[in-house]
Parts: sequence; structure tokens; C-alpha cells
Amino acid sequence: MKKAVVILSGGMDSSLCAYIAKNKGYEVITLHFNYDQKTQKRELKAFYDISKKIQAIKQIELNLDFFKNMSGLSLIDKKTAVQTTGIEEGIPNTYVPYRNGIFLSIAGAIAEQEDAEAIYIGVVEEDSSGYPDCREEFIDSIAQTINLGTKPQTKIKIITPLVTLKKEDIVKKAMEYQVPLELTWSCYQNSLKACGVCDSCRLRLKGFSKAGQKDQIDYL
Amino acid sequence: MKKAVVILSGGMDSSLCAYIAKNKGYEVITLHFNYDQKTQKRELKAFYDISKKIQAIKQIELNLDFFKNMSGLSLIDKKTAVQTTGIEEGIPNTYVPYRNGIFLSIAGAIAEQEDAEAIYIGVVEEDSSGYPDCREEFIDSIAQTINLGTKPQTKIKIITPLVTLKKEDIVKKAMEYQVPLELTWSCYQNSLKACGVCDSCRLRLKGFSKAGQKDQIDYL
Repeated sequence: MKKAVVILSGGMDSSLCAYIAKNKGYEVITLHFNYDQKTQKRELKAFYDISKKIQAIKQIELNLDFFKNMSGLSLIDKKTAVQTTGIEEGIPNTYVPYRNGIFLSIAGAIAEQEDAEAIYIGVVEEDSSGYPDCREEFIDSIAQTINLGTKPQTKIKIITPLVTLKKEDIVKKAMEYQVPLELTWSCYQNSLKACGVCDSCRLRLKGFSKAGQKDQIDYL
Repeated sequence: MKKAVVILSGGMDSSLCAYIAKNKGYEVITLHFNYDQKTQKRELKAFYDISKKIQAIKQIELNLDFFKNMSGLSLIDKKTAVQTTGIEEGIPNTYVPYRNGIFLSIAGAIAEQEDAEAIYIGVVEEDSSGYPDCREEFIDSIAQTINLGTKPQTKIKIITPLVTLKKEDIVKKAMEYQVPLELTWSCYQNSLKACGVCDSCRLRLKGFSKAGQKDQIDYL
């Protein structure tokens, strides 16, 4: 059976990706990164909950704690607050340098090692504008780079099923695929009740609202 | 002053790179990866020795221990022997999936964070043939990918001063730059006395011999 590595943070987008991969007939290896982000433990729980639901054949949890030595990153640095004033033009302070580039490079090594033919990543170009490593142009470039830098017989596709979707479409599609959204976690700053005001919560709530659905997780 | 990140294993090639970068007028940040390789401690000593000699402004040591979960990698897996029968056609068993791709991606994130304009890496195309992530074509591709995946104002060059050199030229150039080669470590399997028979020792010894020089480190 063909295999895929799914980069799974435990949020709505990556969880939907995992369900899509499974639905396409892949055996799924789920891959999660701990990088000392403020909501690390809560995300990890979501990762294992979703991995179990889709019957992942392997669950890989990796520690990349070097990001914590980078100051001024609001997702990590305890002295820097997560932006809560709404989405603005430009690169948000929740940007972590080249995060998806590093995640995909490691996923590439794992895919080669596990004989997986695809990597799924839940990047969304429009809603997350401002993150340079979420753009389709970047994904195409890194796919080419990974194939150049691995064995000649290794051919890995990077699949981004959500890249052109809006959050409301993601909520609708997640309903369609019966993704247990109540198990997913999106908030950037809290782990018990979602804050409702960080960019990630705002996008999630807007998505549910526009899709005419109610989010079942607890908010402050 | 302009800054460069030098990926420094502590071998001859990367040590020469560090000296070249320093000589080009860069303030040097040295970057070392521990990935559970068999000679990890010995390499780390060489890394700190060389970093000190070139007065690195920052020394970054990162643990990437997830490689240890990949079986059959001779540089890491204690059950798999390092190849000692000489260099052959094809990909050697010392290949670690997409290692340079991962190293360069992390170096890219650090370069962006530290405002460094260059990354130095001591890849050698001809002598290390068989490693897909040592080829110039790969390096050009990943440089483009990193620049696409980081902030618009981030412009990072990847400099490979040794890529077209043979080992004997590297030994000669290292003498020219007064690199303390006796502090460097190349052996893939031993940490006290070099084995003299793994690919890395063979290449090193051949380089010294063809350059008409004597290697000052201890061999079995």
C-alpha cells in the first residue's frame, strides 16, 4: 500500500489533511514537531487524538528545541506577546523563521527512509498571507529541492490540499470528511480555553461562523 | 560587519570553510549538529577547537537526535557497520537521508534570525560523489528555496568554496590558510585514533599523500 507522511500540528488544517490522505488510500505516518511553542502540550494531545482516529501506521514526535534560542518569536519567547489585534498586512509576529522549510526537509528525510511517496502539509495561502513559507511557489520549489537532494529513485510529492481554500471552506470540508474538529487545537497562546483573539483563533472562529457552524471547543 | 553562518562538523573541509569565511571579512557564527553519529563527541571537540581558533562570534550546537530512529544508517546505527572496503560507485552506506538539506534549512533560519548574508558549507562534489545533497545543482536549488521561504528582505547566499576541489587541493589550501588540521577530525567510526579505512579516512589520507604532506593525527 502507498504511504504518505502527514505533517500534523493538531490544528484544523493539518487534521483535515490527515483525513484527506487517509481517504485517498494512503497508509498515513503522522509527524509532529515540538519546538517549545507556548501551546506545545495541548497541540501534542490533539496530534495523538487525531493520529489515533485515522489509525496512523506510525506516529513520529520530534523535538526541535533550537527555535527556543531565537528571541522575539511570539509563538515561543515567553517575553514576547502573541499578536491579538487582528490580521494586518505584512509578516505577523507569529512568524517562525523558515519553519515550514525545516518541517518539510525533515519530512522529506523521513519519507525517503519510510518509502513514502507523498508528504501532506496543510498550508493555506490566502488566509495565512504574510508567511512566506506557506505560498504555493515555495512549496513547488522545496519539492524540487528535496528530490534533487535525495536518492535518484526517491520521488516525493508534496500535496497541499488546502492551499487555495478559505477557512470557511476548510470547516465545510472537515464536516464532509467527518473530522472531529472538537479534538483539534488552533489557539496560539492558551492550552485550556482558546483565547479567541489571536490570529489563529480569529481565523478559526471566522471560518466556523461563515460556514454557519458552531465550534465545540471552549473559549475564554 | 557582515556575518556568515558556517556549518562546521570539525572535519578538514568545514574547518577550511570557516577559515575562508573569516578571511573574506565575515564575522563567523559556527553551527554544529549532533545527530547521534558514532564520533559525535570527538567531532564536537574539533568544532569547539576550530571555533575558538577563528574567534567565532557565536557557536551554536544543535541536537537533531531524530536521525537515530532511522535504522540502517551506518554513521549512526550501532548495528550497522561503516563501510571500509573503499569508495565504490553509487550511494555509500554512510548516506544519511537529506542530511545537508536539513542542515542548510536550519542554517537558513539561523541566518535570517541573525541577519547573516551567507552560509558556508564544505561540500565537495567530486570526492564525495554518491551523496545527492553534495552536488552544486542541489545547493543552487536549496538556496533559491530558502530565499523563497523567508522574509522578502532576507537574501542569503550559500557559499561552497570547496565544491570543485579534490582532497589534495583541500589539504594544500588548508596549509595556505594555516588551518590547524591536527585539531580536525574526519574518521566515521573511531574517536581516539582514526581507523584509516573508512571512506572519510581514506579520502583524508589520500589527500595528504597526494599533497606531499603528513597528517599529524593518530591512526590505528
